[in-house]
Amino acid sequence: MTDQRLDRLANVLVDYCCAVKPGMWVGILGDVIALPALRAVYREVLCYGGNPTLFISDEWMERTFIREATDEQIAWLDPSQTLYYEQADIYIRVGATSNTRAMTNISAERTQKVRAARRPWLDTRLRRAAEGSFEWVATWYPTEASAQEANMSLEEYEDFVYSAMFCDRDDPAGEWRKLSAMQQKKVDWLKGKRQVRLQGPHIDLELSIAGRTFVNSDGHKNMPSGEIFTGPVEDSVNGWVRFDYPSIVSGRAVSGIELKFERGQVVSARAESNEDLLHAQLNTDAGARYLGEFAIGTNFGINRFTGNILFDEKIGGTIHMAIGKGYPETGSRNDSAVHWDMICDMRRDSAIYVDGELFYQNGEFVI
Amino acid sequence: MTDQRLDRLANVLVDYCCAVKPGMWVGILGDVIALPALRAVYREVLCYGGNPTLFISDEWMERTFIREATDEQIAWLDPSQTLYYEQADIYIRVGATSNTRAMTNISAERTQKVRAARRPWLDTRLRRAAEGSFEWVATWYPTEASAQEANMSLEEYEDFVYSAMFCDRDDPAGEWRKLSAMQQKKVDWLKGKRQVRLQGPHIDLELSIAGRTFVNSDGHKNMPSGEIFTGPVEDSVNGWVRFDYPSIVSGRAVSGIELKFERGQVVSARAESNEDLLHAQLNTDAGARYLGEFAIGTNFGINRFTGNILFDEKIGGTIHMAIGKGYPETGSRNDSAVHWDMICDMRRDSAIYVDGELFYQNGEFVI
Repeated sequence: MTDQRLDRLANVLVDYCCAVKPGMWVGILGDVIALPALRAVYREVLCYGGNPTLFISDEWMERTFIREATDEQIAWLDPSQTLYYEQADIYIRVGATSNTRAMTNISAERTQKVRAARRPWLDTRLRRAAEGSFEWVATWYPTEASAQEANMSLEEYEDFVYSAMFCDRDDPAGEWRKLSAMQQKKVDWLKGKRQVRLQGPHIDLELSIAGRTFVNSDGHKNMPSGEIFTGPVEDSVNGWVRFDYPSIVSGRAVSGIELKFERGQVVSARAESNEDLLHAQLNTDAGARYLGEFAIGTNFGINRFTGNILFDEKIGGTIHMAIGKGYPETGSRNDSAVHWDMICDMRRDSAIYVDGELFYQNGEFVI
Repeated sequence: MTDQRLDRLANVLVDYCCAVKPGMWVGILGDVIALPALRAVYREVLCYGGNPTLFISDEWMERTFIREATDEQIAWLDPSQTLYYEQADIYIRVGATSNTRAMTNISAERTQKVRAARRPWLDTRLRRAAEGSFEWVATWYPTEASAQEANMSLEEYEDFVYSAMFCDRDDPAGEWRKLSAMQQKKVDWLKGKRQVRLQGPHIDLELSIAGRTFVNSDGHKNMPSGEIFTGPVEDSVNGWVRFDYPSIVSGRAVSGIELKFERGQVVSARAESNEDLLHAQLNTDAGARYLGEFAIGTNFGINRFTGNILFDEKIGGTIHMAIGKGYPETGSRNDSAVHWDMICDMRRDSAIYVDGELFYQNGEFVI
């Protein structure tokens, strides 16, 4: 017997997120440590009539590749995977790790080089998704390592993960549809609006969303999701924010980040720990000093910080912003090598005004 | 630290068996339970400049597929795997199982249907290998399940497996080259010979090898190997044989098999256990009553029967014969759905005469 919540997750991924139909070519991607989840998804894909291809990877091999591969080996793109990205219908990735710190001592430059070589696969996936000929979703499978990173036991962490995905409830897809409908109303209301002002104990900031689009992130691409996000007008951001949760970069936490913006640009930046990393991020390129994303987390199934951005940025009652690259579909023009999310708690004495109207108060929409 | 013998095996597979060269596309295939072996092979392929593609499978998923897939799903051939078989250079499969009896209650008909659907991949692999544009090798990774099947502890079974592959010695490839050279001399000597007569406490049989070719099976395709084999002239077999070791079919052992041949055909067949299975095999089709293979096992690293034909048929000092399909490269014309090996011990009071000359005595070549 597998965990019933895992079976529900498999169903959500296959049905709600990707709408697998008979005859579709479905890639199932993940590390060997995610095997129970990969099995559940595999069976569900079969059950929906899909044709599954397994891409089971292994962290040890990936690290070995990053450390030892020659330039020729890095440049080589597996033609069978290229074919998959070009012709398949669905992509379901189950993230998982047996050691959240295993990459700590691996050269970031080498990692980046391998990632860059595989960029055509990412580009093909995103291009075909934008064209509507490819569906993709990425989720997360709880392991001891992730539980440890989150300061929990495995059983506590499993509760956390499945609650975030609504898979602790009888009808997770129904819950996601409800969340989606709620978010869509906010997105619709925000259409045509111009000015956002954020106030609270840790924030006093304004930014323009004029001409920009909010996206309803309702779990179709990330499971869990639960946020609406846009890209603010690049030079419109003014004010001050102190982020409540640490932001992680390459496995290292930068906590107590405080940023001051003038005409969009970060003009002052401090952090309580690893401040050098913060400055390194900001100095990466021109775009890294400007916001690429402004978002409101709406997932009240996520009630604590765990150091995994897939979950953290969706915490119900928080907002987050990312310095660096924005999402083109929002209208953002920020192109940067950086996209780094920072999270601010809005559950106490906080408010968001849109064009002067109270839109959000103490973690809840009021429109 | 992995078992040093496993690292040696990885080297034998990549260097001796397949001769991986820089830029070659190398498939690494195996079940998740073989992960330590897959990792060792992966690293060795990288080290030799190869471009590895992983095809990691899972017994649970495979069983689920066999049980539950629709006809459409069975008929669908993963285009990315088809591309691999058509264009890649090397195939390294690591067999392993977490339960040797897991297929016991799965319909043989369904299993056969799935196998038949994937036949084009096998055909492409064998065709390209025959053309010289593809190298392949299959090996075996020791698990608790296989040790249990062999009535051993895992550590005893590991000793057995690595001894069979000469990976308990400093230079396994050197040992394989020596065995290959020895076998090649026998194969050369057998060229142009006509009549083979086998005598011993459990055998009194003659067969013709006129016009047939012996193959030097020296570990390039099976690791371990250690046999020379041919296909006897189909209607030339006369006499009697009692097989010392059980023959396994679909996980069930048929022991004490005794066969009588007249003009090539099995005219009488008995077994001490599961005799019905023996008759079912013989009655499969016309070819199943004739021999397709006659072979001499030469691997003295294998000194006991373990119920795994990859090892059993190579036991040094035994001969084996298969009813049913022969290998076309030997000249065999026997085409059958059956290929079932049976093993006869020749280590005591036994001899093989070729064209009247003593060729082999008590488990050893004397030419």
